[in-house]
Amino acid sequence: MASKSLFLPNRPLKVVILGSSGAVGSELIKILSERDFPISELVLLSSERSEGTIINWKEKEIVTKKATEHEFFDADLVFASAGGSISKKWLPTIQEQNAILIDNSSAFRLENNVPLVVPEVNADDAFNHDGIIANPNCTTILLTLALAPLNKISPIKRLIVSTYQSVSGAGQRAMEELKFLTEKFLKGDPQKSEVLPHSLAFNLFLHNSNMLSNKYCEEEMKMVNETRKILNIPNLKISATCVRVPILRAHSESVNIEFENVIEPKDALEQLKNSNGIEILEDYEKNRFPMPSDVMGKDNIAVGRLRTDISNPNGLELWLCGDQIRKGAALNAVQIAELLIPRK
Amino acid sequence: MASKSLFLPNRPLKVVILGSSGAVGSELIKILSERDFPISELVLLSSERSEGTIINWKEKEIVTKKATEHEFFDADLVFASAGGSISKKWLPTIQEQNAILIDNSSAFRLENNVPLVVPEVNADDAFNHDGIIANPNCTTILLTLALAPLNKISPIKRLIVSTYQSVSGAGQRAMEELKFLTEKFLKGDPQKSEVLPHSLAFNLFLHNSNMLSNKYCEEEMKMVNETRKILNIPNLKISATCVRVPILRAHSESVNIEFENVIEPKDALEQLKNSNGIEILEDYEKNRFPMPSDVMGKDNIAVGRLRTDISNPNGLELWLCGDQIRKGAALNAVQIAELLIPRK
Repeated sequence: MASKSLFLPNRPLKVVILGSSGAVGSELIKILSERDFPISELVLLSSERSEGTIINWKEKEIVTKKATEHEFFDADLVFASAGGSISKKWLPTIQEQNAILIDNSSAFRLENNVPLVVPEVNADDAFNHDGIIANPNCTTILLTLALAPLNKISPIKRLIVSTYQSVSGAGQRAMEELKFLTEKFLKGDPQKSEVLPHSLAFNLFLHNSNMLSNKYCEEEMKMVNETRKILNIPNLKISATCVRVPILRAHSESVNIEFENVIEPKDALEQLKNSNGIEILEDYEKNRFPMPSDVMGKDNIAVGRLRTDISNPNGLELWLCGDQIRKGAALNAVQIAELLIPRK
Repeated sequence: MASKSLFLPNRPLKVVILGSSGAVGSELIKILSERDFPISELVLLSSERSEGTIINWKEKEIVTKKATEHEFFDADLVFASAGGSISKKWLPTIQEQNAILIDNSSAFRLENNVPLVVPEVNADDAFNHDGIIANPNCTTILLTLALAPLNKISPIKRLIVSTYQSVSGAGQRAMEELKFLTEKFLKGDPQKSEVLPHSLAFNLFLHNSNMLSNKYCEEEMKMVNETRKILNIPNLKISATCVRVPILRAHSESVNIEFENVIEPKDALEQLKNSNGIEILEDYEKNRFPMPSDVMGKDNIAVGRLRTDISNPNGLELWLCGDQIRKGAALNAVQIAELLIPRK
């Protein structure tokens, strides 16, 4: 492996997106444009199924291509969002070009020499990379954004999380299926899911990722292990139940936090108010707290409903919502890349 | 107040239903018929808005009437499901007739001389009544059904619950609104909720019941206080976060349980398997666990996904779904009434 710079070159970059026609890929393109990311050439790669998709990039149209070695030639930066096996397959090619890989899959997240970064939380970790920086799982990004500021007031000892996850985490086709099957449900027609294991039309189910020997699913253990790594609390006690709900693109999380000491909800709220990436949405008088519809298409997560856990004086209950495709995936990846752009 | 018998008379009964045209009232009528409850006369009362609704009862049609004192004359049993203020209003009239009130509202649930009963859990409590027996809140019924058998293996010390509650808990009109607004969403039309505080179409929100001074809402404190009363653990530590999700009539609950001792998931499962009112739906190989669609219209709740809490050796995580209108309300009320029928 050639030695790599920690930073990206100080010039417009050749950027490759692997998985450019998916839900996260499309959002990546949108966000790179919105944030005026310095790009000289944008290469959009996709699966054979989506090859030839025409995508608008600023004033031009770009046609997505099937990935070949040739497409990575002279690349500076690769965003991969096409699953772990695709990331692994193209890693040697990416490394040959001395390009930096920002990987949205779970393939490298827990490797020692791969930083797992939420820029508002652990930006410094990004600079210990060896060519790969991993983008955390969506639920973990949203969760650690809210936890890191609180962990500074008093160390977090234990977390119990239940999630309300949108279908966007299962991709564009799952989003289409939810709408399609809901339409069928309303018409009284029989429903048969093809993308998801069960119809989500007015239904929900426990996250269908692979089951592990401890009876937690992969999605749940991602939250456990990635939260520990990002917050740098290797022995953090944490249990998660991940649930897929009929929501299109924003995740919600019900979070029970036990701290080393008592934290007053108003102090926690003040701390979160002064943290980046977070909007407070909490009005007890009007009974108004974050909802998925509040955060769709938004950069910030919404946090609210902080209250002392009546079952534990050192505990807080907290509720959050965040756009899964945006801060939960694409935006966070672009923010990681931005960290690597040399400051003038 | 006249002295009352603990049992219902041993003959076909005059039964009055207050709130007979609502979601729970309609299900009550259906269940009384299905279970061949001994009825000589059925009086169906409703709000002025729904007065005159024609309801099928066995081979007859019954027209719902506005409640007046006259309608309660000689009643043996009253099911009330029209809200706390209506139950309170008609209580003196019901008591004058020496009728027994099975009340689905929260008006009397925590009163000392009012038993709060889930027949599979605390049937004996029903016989300490003084004319009123309270039907617990939907989420509490489903929860205590699963907890009571486990509490016999090892005392429960602490509970942390997050709910996924269907709209049926907000009534028939909320169910219609969810379907109507979802249709509008799919057409791209603007949505304005009138029954619920926000549109639930592909959306969810924290339960909108009144906020209390401890920053828990009434719905959450119902779960806290009613679970303590039903399980007879007055100091049980319990925290709940109640969430309304776009599901029509089944609630789900993610339950973190801390016991006095270690309980093996297989022993917990065995215990639940041998308990009434519970169906086990747990297949780790096929990744198949309870969903709302599994329990719609069913008497039993479905429980599964039992696993040792990786953050606490004395903890179990558990997942359950149950039909909110049926076991969560109407069926439980009828089962309470059945307890009071003298055995031959």
